[in-house]
Amino acid sequence: MQLFYDPDFVPPLHTLGEEESRHCVRVLRLTEGASLHLTDGRGTLYRCRIVSADPRRCTVEAVETVHDFEPLPYRLVMGVAPTKNADRFEWFLEKATEVGVTAIVPLETDHSERRVFRPQRGEKVITAAIKQSLKAFRPELRSLAPLREVLEAPFEGRRFIAHCDQARSQAGKRYLPAALHPGEAALVLIGPEGDFSPREIDAAIACGFEEITLGTQRLRTETAALTAVVMASVVNTIHNS
Amino acid sequence: MQLFYDPDFVPPLHTLGEEESRHCVRVLRLTEGASLHLTDGRGTLYRCRIVSADPRRCTVEAVETVHDFEPLPYRLVMGVAPTKNADRFEWFLEKATEVGVTAIVPLETDHSERRVFRPQRGEKVITAAIKQSLKAFRPELRSLAPLREVLEAPFEGRRFIAHCDQARSQAGKRYLPAALHPGEAALVLIGPEGDFSPREIDAAIACGFEEITLGTQRLRTETAALTAVVMASVVNTIHNS
Repeated sequence: MQLFYDPDFVPPLHTLGEEESRHCVRVLRLTEGASLHLTDGRGTLYRCRIVSADPRRCTVEAVETVHDFEPLPYRLVMGVAPTKNADRFEWFLEKATEVGVTAIVPLETDHSERRVFRPQRGEKVITAAIKQSLKAFRPELRSLAPLREVLEAPFEGRRFIAHCDQARSQAGKRYLPAALHPGEAALVLIGPEGDFSPREIDAAIACGFEEITLGTQRLRTETAALTAVVMASVVNTIHNS
Repeated sequence: MQLFYDPDFVPPLHTLGEEESRHCVRVLRLTEGASLHLTDGRGTLYRCRIVSADPRRCTVEAVETVHDFEPLPYRLVMGVAPTKNADRFEWFLEKATEVGVTAIVPLETDHSERRVFRPQRGEKVITAAIKQSLKAFRPELRSLAPLREVLEAPFEGRRFIAHCDQARSQAGKRYLPAALHPGEAALVLIGPEGDFSPREIDAAIACGFEEITLGTQRLRTETAALTAVVMASVVNTIHNS
């Protein structure tokens, strides 16, 4: 199955952009009448037929519409401090998209190694990943947000902060897969290489965040973030198996 | 804590290689009397004191020896078909080392995209990862092996094959985190982008491998492989939390 992405698709007729038209006609050598799939990234999957195999303006017609195609059965928002090396963060965006995530919020923290975040490359990575893993729901990449803003924003679900410091709260640190329950919406915060500052951890707890651990291993920021994404997937899958 | 790696370290005195000496003296600016840690990658961690801060031949003396430093509480061997893009496989080696793996076997399969595997870069990646994540046990990177060899080799533990085809065995496919139990040694096989061939899957089952799934998401080879590594870690951690 070949999946194309266009958030502006309005059925029935649609003309692919120049890059996708070329890919479709020149690279994949699809001709008139051939079918391909297209998604708006908001859950709708269209099976389309090529009506004009123009390498610059390939026009397709939707012949079948599937709403809510394979939705993620839970909400997971990951707040992650961008890594100094942009590739590492983009790698996380690709992998999190494959495994399953609702939204990613790049965090600006006391020890952040990057305070400027240009979303363009990340958006490209996410688009390539939904096409590759055939997803109709595209994860949302939010803009860089100061931690304080994320701590104080309302969130319908459990809110967790993963940090390497001593537990501050009475409850102590719980292991994410033991703390999270199937179907629960979750917001998980992952700090920079230098960890969240004590001040930030206290602020998170004061805002009602639960302290969690991802295990005893020392993980890089992007590894910790993907580990949390896989853990949420396991918690939401294992009870059905 | 600064961790250095030298498989040939023989206490008490040791002279670091040229690259590590330079890193130690020029980059970290460590001087005589300063302490650093060194591992042989076989589980022994030495706390050392610098006796000669020579930027080309830095000599250290072991002042404390810790045997079996933070061993992985389970055995996990990952058999993974190398990806066409070498970076993706090396990325897996780095992340698997961080999360926890005993050994990695690059697999030669019917649909393999790479039939030649040069371990040098992978070894470098693993060494950098154990230093970065402070591990005294270095995962073993085996040489490229034909699948058949791995299927027929003896293994003390559960043996799993993750594939995307229909389940062949009576038992069907089980979800890895539900099939694996804490403390069990496991060998998990992950196929190439084109999956294992039906012939290979049948051969694995005939050799006693259990068919598993990693969930319903479509994962790239290296993502599937790391997902399995995280799942094994969760299974072995959650029962203690």
